[in-house]
Amino acid sequence: MQQIKFYSSINGELSAGGRAARLLQDRGLFYGHGLFESMALQSAQVPLLAEHLHRLYEDAPKLGINLQAGSVESCLEPFIAALMADGLQTCVIKIIVTAGVGGRGYQSPTPIKPRIICLSAPMPEDMAAQRTEGVSLWRCDYRLPVNPVLAGIKHLNRLDQVLARNEWQSSEFADGLMLTADDNLVEAISANIFVNTENGWATPAINNAGVNGVMRKLLLEQIFAKAAIPVVSRTINAAELTECKEIFICNSIRGLLPVLAVRGSSHEFNLDLAIGAQTKMLQSCLRDNYVGF
Amino acid sequence: MQQIKFYSSINGELSAGGRAARLLQDRGLFYGHGLFESMALQSAQVPLLAEHLHRLYEDAPKLGINLQAGSVESCLEPFIAALMADGLQTCVIKIIVTAGVGGRGYQSPTPIKPRIICLSAPMPEDMAAQRTEGVSLWRCDYRLPVNPVLAGIKHLNRLDQVLARNEWQSSEFADGLMLTADDNLVEAISANIFVNTENGWATPAINNAGVNGVMRKLLLEQIFAKAAIPVVSRTINAAELTECKEIFICNSIRGLLPVLAVRGSSHEFNLDLAIGAQTKMLQSCLRDNYVGF
Repeated sequence: MQQIKFYSSINGELSAGGRAARLLQDRGLFYGHGLFESMALQSAQVPLLAEHLHRLYEDAPKLGINLQAGSVESCLEPFIAALMADGLQTCVIKIIVTAGVGGRGYQSPTPIKPRIICLSAPMPEDMAAQRTEGVSLWRCDYRLPVNPVLAGIKHLNRLDQVLARNEWQSSEFADGLMLTADDNLVEAISANIFVNTENGWATPAINNAGVNGVMRKLLLEQIFAKAAIPVVSRTINAAELTECKEIFICNSIRGLLPVLAVRGSSHEFNLDLAIGAQTKMLQSCLRDNYVGF
Repeated sequence: MQQIKFYSSINGELSAGGRAARLLQDRGLFYGHGLFESMALQSAQVPLLAEHLHRLYEDAPKLGINLQAGSVESCLEPFIAALMADGLQTCVIKIIVTAGVGGRGYQSPTPIKPRIICLSAPMPEDMAAQRTEGVSLWRCDYRLPVNPVLAGIKHLNRLDQVLARNEWQSSEFADGLMLTADDNLVEAISANIFVNTENGWATPAINNAGVNGVMRKLLLEQIFAKAAIPVVSRTINAAELTECKEIFICNSIRGLLPVLAVRGSSHEFNLDLAIGAQTKMLQSCLRDNYVGF
């Protein structure tokens, strides 16, 4: 391959190299070749830090990215220290790990030198109200594609979520409900979902689509058990929703948000629910064990 | 939403803002919310410039990105002028258009302010040999998901291609053959595909998966007609490959590459072919009309 000088421009302005020019060549931007975590920094603590790091180290190799032990922590710790030094104790921290620069087109470089990016974002202000008062969901027309290889991974290919989220503008809907083409329930756009059906509590299995959410895992493995409520991960068809007694969505920033209503472009599957006693019990169980929820 | 200072770090190094920090917040990196074009600059010309720009302006709105008329040209022209001024007359030019910065999570900002990035990359050196001597393909185990909304668009969500391309390391295979889960042929990893079946020439329809390649379109709409060879776009099952007389792959950088062999992790569908007379005729027809192929 011939060696040529690398030229780049951003919005017409020629770039003279440096950090921005290197970022422009990143496989994260080129292909979405990477993963991310969004974590809550709550009163100077990241309550689910171990869980987020566990998922990141476990899933990165599925995209060919071998993260050296401790490499993410060595970036995250000085980053959090800098936030603290500026008096910022509560925000969202986003970690992006990409496959870095290089390779021949889609072929990865050998070895991949991961790029680890830490970012801050404001904590959503409406969380507390959403937890106590519940939320409404938009039932998205956009359908999640089935892909068993990528299912579960919180990777950077998120056009599905972008297109689904832009189906509505009204602040009436806090999140969207996502189905597969064969009407199986997957998740909300930025949260997982749990439903109390005629056969008890369940959350959609994520073998074909969806994200293996940190809060979903915590609920399945710990919180439901602490509340002595049985729960399973299984295929859930949308038709089951009409018989549901309670529904909530969850993620590691917002915690558990009870679902009061589901609306969509057809009226056929509209739902109205009350905040359930078991949802409240699970919220309380989570709060007892983890700060900030 | 509370306003906080934006903090970021790259590989542990805190960023003091500026261009790199803004790029870190780009929806292209966060979500792959954008599109790209790879074009050949051949002897100071971009032979398919109009076709690339047409696709970009047509597909960007499908991702909610409304590109102002002329906005890409106004970035591209000074970029090409800079290459020329440095004496670079032949290379690959990549244009990336992203949804820029902003929005609330997956929700797009209103309005989207697109970011237009121009990059140079070296022209592959092995093209001329591949055109005359043909190439071998790896039949990928990875299956392309079915998604009618995103099909056709050359968007930045390319993990499918990354994972498929990393199935083999050997230089024996120039590209990979990609199928859907139900064994329908879609394309090569970085090219479209045309096959001469028992029923004549065909290329896979791209309603459910695949990229609406500039070279594919040119072949379907002009080059086959100039060569007086009938061709259709239709569903093609992998089983039809065993009866094929000629196969070639194509894109707007490499032109038409005859396929001599297909191999995969099972021997069941291995194929061996000769370079066909009609493939040569199509190559020659393309070369007569467009410089550099």
